[in-house]
Amino acid sequence: MSAATTQLVLDLVGVFVFALSGGLAAVRARLDLFGVVVVASVTALGGGIVRDTLLAQNPPYSLRHWPYLVVPVVASVVVFRFHPQVARARALVLLLDAAGLGLFTVTATQKSLAVGLGWAGASMIGVITGIGGGVIRDVLLRQIPVVLQREIYAVAALVGAGLVCLGHALGQLHAPWLIATAVVVFGIRVVALRRHWSAPTARNLEDQAGT
Amino acid sequence: MSAATTQLVLDLVGVFVFALSGGLAAVRARLDLFGVVVVASVTALGGGIVRDTLLAQNPPYSLRHWPYLVVPVVASVVVFRFHPQVARARALVLLLDAAGLGLFTVTATQKSLAVGLGWAGASMIGVITGIGGGVIRDVLLRQIPVVLQREIYAVAALVGAGLVCLGHALGQLHAPWLIATAVVVFGIRVVALRRHWSAPTARNLEDQAGT
Amino acid sequence: MSAATTQLVLDLVGVFVFALSGGLAAVRARLDLFGVVVVASVTALGGGIVRDTLLAQNPPYSLRHWPYLVVPVVASVVVFRFHPQVARARALVLLLDAAGLGLFTVTATQKSLAVGLGWAGASMIGVITGIGGGVIRDVLLRQIPVVLQREIYAVAALVGAGLVCLGHALGQLHAPWLIATAVVVFGIRVVALRRHWSAPTARNLEDQAGT
Repeated sequence: MSAATTQLVLDLVGVFVFALSGGLAAVRARLDLFGVVVVASVTALGGGIVRDTLLAQNPPYSLRHWPYLVVPVVASVVVFRFHPQVARARALVLLLDAAGLGLFTVTATQKSLAVGLGWAGASMIGVITGIGGGVIRDVLLRQIPVVLQREIYAVAALVGAGLVCLGHALGQLHAPWLIATAVVVFGIRVVALRRHWSAPTARNLEDQAGT
Repeated sequence: MSAATTQLVLDLVGVFVFALSGGLAAVRARLDLFGVVVVASVTALGGGIVRDTLLAQNPPYSLRHWPYLVVPVVASVVVFRFHPQVARARALVLLLDAAGLGLFTVTATQKSLAVGLGWAGASMIGVITGIGGGVIRDVLLRQIPVVLQREIYAVAALVGAGLVCLGHALGQLHAPWLIATAVVVFGIRVVALRRHWSAPTARNLEDQAGT
Repeated sequence: MSAATTQLVLDLVGVFVFALSGGLAAVRARLDLFGVVVVASVTALGGGIVRDTLLAQNPPYSLRHWPYLVVPVVASVVVFRFHPQVARARALVLLLDAAGLGLFTVTATQKSLAVGLGWAGASMIGVITGIGGGVIRDVLLRQIPVVLQREIYAVAALVGAGLVCLGHALGQLHAPWLIATAVVVFGIRVVALRRHWSAPTARNLEDQAGT
């Protein structure tokens, strides 16, 4: 698979899992069907649209290729199929969110390097794209963005962006490197989540110490 | 009237009614004069600025033509004239919002088609432009966006975008078609609002059933 | 110092103080280290990124020059050094915010005029850039944006933008004029803050009168 094909596939998979993540969050917030579709679409496409805007590549890639617009609708329908089972699916939402984070960070960093941006700017755009959809989702649902509450979230994206830059410098930016990097970001995020689950009161203690 | 002139007039009318909608919401949130002007301007111009950004037509049209910047200020002054009577004007805010939705969706979809975007992308930008200003307004005022709570909101915009695409395909994209489409969107939204008004507890019941 | 050098220095100083402002707000909201870095970076760079997007100058200047990405991290570390002393630093946050408002409004208005925008559009972009970072910061931290609650905030930015336009019309847009304008914006904002501090119940009284 060429780098271009790999990027397209990773990007569409990222759109799908982020749409699931956004759709599940919207269902949990008890929005109706079309509210769910809107939140799922914004979560899935928001990061990439911000990326294309920052890279001066508008109209955004997703708006010029219809699969990007169909995938979030399909994901919303899938979420609705599993609606009753989803009530306690906070773990699943976070897991899908982690997968999307890895995929979007990798593809956005790669795309930024491809248009000649330096490692600092490319990493920044990688992180913004990776966390952007989730931040918009949380703001729309009036929740403090997950990225601000879980310290390893942005760090995982930053590590991923750095690995893509490293692969670029080494001339190794092919499919295996990209997929491995996405898996690393996913892994860091999941491990961080598990650790936080076993220590959920850390932040409250800190609050008391600070008051 | 040519299509271009029609678009300009519809656009300025849309700016005015959306500014009224934003200004009234800001007054109801008890913001001071300049907070009202800011919210009115953002609500009125936000959708179009996002549209021009996505279509790579920046600097935004509204920032290059001063009437777009004066109209929201005038609307804010109008809102302040009617300030005492406005206290119970939730119905009026929603009505103006529906008018702005129709006008903005129509002009944005037309503009997207004019630059060569396909029907899917043009519809997406039409919907984003139509609902964008209202979403920004609600986020700034810390309310869950109306579009997420009223299912017929985005659907009305989607129908309007589809009708503009249909008119484009039929070669009928002149003033009557555009105005009729805006009226259709407005009508769908108003009918949806009326139905919701007579069944305001529907969502609460759903919540209880789901819990 | 040439106008270009002056703009760069003012811009980086603005980034630093806005990052301090965002970082302090994030610390006060009890976010962890990386949440603080994210909020500080968004607050510091958000206005400029919006400005470059609206002026069709993407990729944003800050993403193509690494000092812009390092400064917010340094500011976050500084904030963490003073963490314990910062608990009651609401006054300091507002003061730094005022300085950033002046610096960003001035440089953005100048940049907009330099690309040929009229006074109305240039002023609008100046105000958006000046208040943009702070608005994003407040939305992320789920607070009603300061700009909507303090009427002199946007007005101070508007006066600054107007003075830059005036200097441009008079052919006096050199370092002294720019710095003086930034100081004027800062002064207006600080005086407004002091007056509000001595009359904190004004808005509550208004609320009662309106109910």
